[in-house]
Amino acid sequence: MSLDHIRIVLVSPIYGGNVGSVCRAMANMGLRDLAIACPRDLDLGEARKMACAGHEILEARRDFPTLAAAVSDCGLVMGATARVGLYRQHAASPRTLAPRILEAADTGRVALVFGPEDHGLSNDDLIFCTHVIQIPSSKAASSLNLAHAVMLCCYEVFLASGQFAGATEKSPEAPSHLRERMFAVWRELLLDVGFMDEDKAMHMMFGVRRILARGKLTEDDVRIMMGIARQIRWKIEHGAGEPPDDGGADPDGGADGPDA
Amino acid sequence: MSLDHIRIVLVSPIYGGNVGSVCRAMANMGLRDLAIACPRDLDLGEARKMACAGHEILEARRDFPTLAAAVSDCGLVMGATARVGLYRQHAASPRTLAPRILEAADTGRVALVFGPEDHGLSNDDLIFCTHVIQIPSSKAASSLNLAHAVMLCCYEVFLASGQFAGATEKSPEAPSHLRERMFAVWRELLLDVGFMDEDKAMHMMFGVRRILARGKLTEDDVRIMMGIARQIRWKIEHGAGEPPDDGGADPDGGADGPDA
Repeated sequence: MSLDHIRIVLVSPIYGGNVGSVCRAMANMGLRDLAIACPRDLDLGEARKMACAGHEILEARRDFPTLAAAVSDCGLVMGATARVGLYRQHAASPRTLAPRILEAADTGRVALVFGPEDHGLSNDDLIFCTHVIQIPSSKAASSLNLAHAVMLCCYEVFLASGQFAGATEKSPEAPSHLRERMFAVWRELLLDVGFMDEDKAMHMMFGVRRILARGKLTEDDVRIMMGIARQIRWKIEHGAGEPPDDGGADPDGGADGPDA
Repeated sequence: MSLDHIRIVLVSPIYGGNVGSVCRAMANMGLRDLAIACPRDLDLGEARKMACAGHEILEARRDFPTLAAAVSDCGLVMGATARVGLYRQHAASPRTLAPRILEAADTGRVALVFGPEDHGLSNDDLIFCTHVIQIPSSKAASSLNLAHAVMLCCYEVFLASGQFAGATEKSPEAPSHLRERMFAVWRELLLDVGFMDEDKAMHMMFGVRRILARGKLTEDDVRIMMGIARQIRWKIEHGAGEPPDDGGADPDGGADGPDA
């Protein structure tokens, strides 16, 4: 799996909390290879407090005496920077570079390198980088928290890897014939309760149809709206008393309704 | 400016450090309206430590007794969730929703709502949300740090706003005639030093051309490569001694060269 070939390299991080937070971000985005170049004394207590699901990444991290050593087996070496001045004008965004990172990680190792919290990557670090990543940010506040910077890069790589499948609605978009049954029931209801006359019905129903057409309308949605209209008509017809057993709609095709 | 119409709403955040970190993320991404719904006692010292460029956002935050109050003037209300179960199946990613958020922020206010660190948004909170945002993450570790979750949403909105102009190379891509002058100088040099014979020259120059064609080659790049070849030829011709004043190339069209 190519995400396993992507190494996060932190150069001389100062705050343990940030290192822990980096580990959590990596775990969230499916990465696990963490290297620390030129390590300082790290507050491991703080790091462990922030690592959460990234605790194994934190414990498995490797220290290297130099950045050169930390990236020596990596093909692509991408240095993240907030500044874009001399030596940084060829910087590209994480979104632009993500496909290139994954392509390289398919056959070799890739390093994403982040400098210390106070000054970022120096030119001495940057010279080892084949690419410069500039993380988009407001001109008024361009310096990101270290873990935030790592998170954004990992996120772009993770998304580009295509491993994430988002939520999907179980209920398909309602076909026309189902929608028409619903509108027919609502038309009858709105006539019954005197919301409109027969001669205004088309006009009003255009309005109702427009409201319900603004977004996707699933089969479950149609069943809810149809059930509501039927239940109201039943209530009007029967007045006070028990509703019929099959009166309510089932909004989730199996669950017990919105109040379950 | 429509980013000013986008409010970050934190429901009962627990850790001051996270709130400060949220403020910094907002500042980085050009947002500044922070609301806290159902606030708990907050460690403001921790918050201020993490806020950095977001300190004004932290001080200007507004507390609301309920989520309903915090979002009452907002058209779109988007709730962020890591889980996608009941009531969350229509969730969409921040990238998918970002254009919709900006469209709504053009004419009205939009709230992005995030639950407390331990449990996220409850169904009681979610009922106020017109949309559900699911932040992409690994199945093995889907729970994000609160500030990381806010950062990713703000980042997507900021990028979609088109306000970020990335680094641009001042030097344009080199035109063919400039490249050809460079290759001619290198061809002479490689013949001079005996790297190739005249009968292998075409074969070797195909190799050199391929190396230099793999990526974009700017006019500055060509000047560096041409300068190197010329300088070497001069050195070979003159042996030990001072190089000529105009021998070195100018890699950045005005700066003092790579060692400046």
